[in-house]
Amino acid sequence: MDYDKIIIGIDPGTNVMGYGILGVRGKDPSMIAMGVIKLDKFESHYMRLGRIYERVLSLVEQYLPDEMAIEAPFFGKNVQSMLKLGRAQGVAIAAALARQVPIHEYEPRKIKQAITGNGNAAKEQVQEMLRRILSIPKENLLPELDATDALAAALCHHYESNKPEVAKSYKSWKDFIAKNPDRVK
Amino acid sequence: MDYDKIIIGIDPGTNVMGYGILGVRGKDPSMIAMGVIKLDKFESHYMRLGRIYERVLSLVEQYLPDEMAIEAPFFGKNVQSMLKLGRAQGVAIAAALARQVPIHEYEPRKIKQAITGNGNAAKEQVQEMLRRILSIPKENLLPELDATDALAAALCHHYESNKPEVAKSYKSWKDFIAKNPDRVK
Repeated sequence: MDYDKIIIGIDPGTNVMGYGILGVRGKDPSMIAMGVIKLDKFESHYMRLGRIYERVLSLVEQYLPDEMAIEAPFFGKNVQSMLKLGRAQGVAIAAALARQVPIHEYEPRKIKQAITGNGNAAKEQVQEMLRRILSIPKENLLPELDATDALAAALCHHYESNKPEVAKSYKSWKDFIAKNPDRVK
Repeated sequence: MDYDKIIIGIDPGTNVMGYGILGVRGKDPSMIAMGVIKLDKFESHYMRLGRIYERVLSLVEQYLPDEMAIEAPFFGKNVQSMLKLGRAQGVAIAAALARQVPIHEYEPRKIKQAITGNGNAAKEQVQEMLRRILSIPKENLLPELDATDALAAALCHHYESNKPEVAKSYKSWKDFIAKNPDRVK
C-alpha cells in the first residue's frame, strides 16, 4: 500500500512505551500499526534505555516514517521522574535522529484537544475518538492505552501539519469559526 | 599506542557537553584527548540533541572506548531543566548503546570525592588535581571546565573498577584505612 506520508507516534514512558504508525493518503489518515514496548521486565535502567533505542530504531527502519510525533509532558511530579522520562525521550529521539527523521513534540493537553476537542479528556475518551476517526475495529485495541496515546500523537501531528498557515493566528473566536467551520459542531 | 582499556567520560549539558578520553595501561591512566561540544550556537533543541548524538557517536567510533562514564546529577533546580538534561543524557547514552559500549554513571559528588578526596571540591580544584594525576601540561587545558569534568568522570570510573570487590563494604573506618592505605594521607 502506498502512502503519501507516514508518521510514527511515540508515547515514551519508563515502564511501557507506546507506538503508533499512521499512514496518510491525500488528507486521509489510517492506522498501519500500533503496539507497546514493555520495559518493566528489565531491571536495569540501561537495559530499558537500550531496549527503547533498539525497538524505536527497528520501527523506523521497518516503516520508514517521514516524521516522528512524540507526546511530551513538560511537567511532572518530581525532578527524579523527569530526569528518567527525559532519558527515555532522549533515547527515542536519538533513534529518529540516527535516521534523519524530523521530530515534533506535543503536550498531552494539545493532543487530547486535537483528537477530542477537549484538552482534559480522559485517556479512554481519546481512545474511543481515535477508534472512530481511524475506523479501528474494537477487537484490535490493546489493553494498554499507551498504544492509542502514541497513535493520537501521530494523528495530532497530521492535523497540525494540515492546518493552513493563516489559521494559526485568529483575531477572534468569530475568526476561528470562519476559518474552521468543520471544527465547530 | 596500545592501551589495555579506553574509557570515554562525558559531562552532558544542554549548552556545552564535555568529553574526555582516558587510556589505561596496566593500572596507569593517561589522557588521550579531551574537548567540548558547543551547543549554544544551535537555536533548536533538536539540533542540539542531534549534534550531541552525532559527536558522541563519532568519538565512540574514533576512539573505540571499552566503557563510558557519565557525570549524572540526580537533582536539579526544576523539573523543566531536569527534563532537558535527561534528554541530553539520553541521546549521549543512545550513542554508546548504538555501539554496545557499557555505561556507568557517577554523581558529581562521587567524582569530586574520587579525584580530590573532597565531595564538595570546587571545579577548579578538580581540574588541578586531574592535571597533576594525569600530568597534563597547563597549556593543554581548555577554558571550559566541562572537558576536565568529563575526564574526571572517566578517571573516577577507572578508580572504581580497580577497587577490589572486598573494599566495597567496610566494617569500620579502621577497615577502610587498612584496605586503602594509599587513600589516607
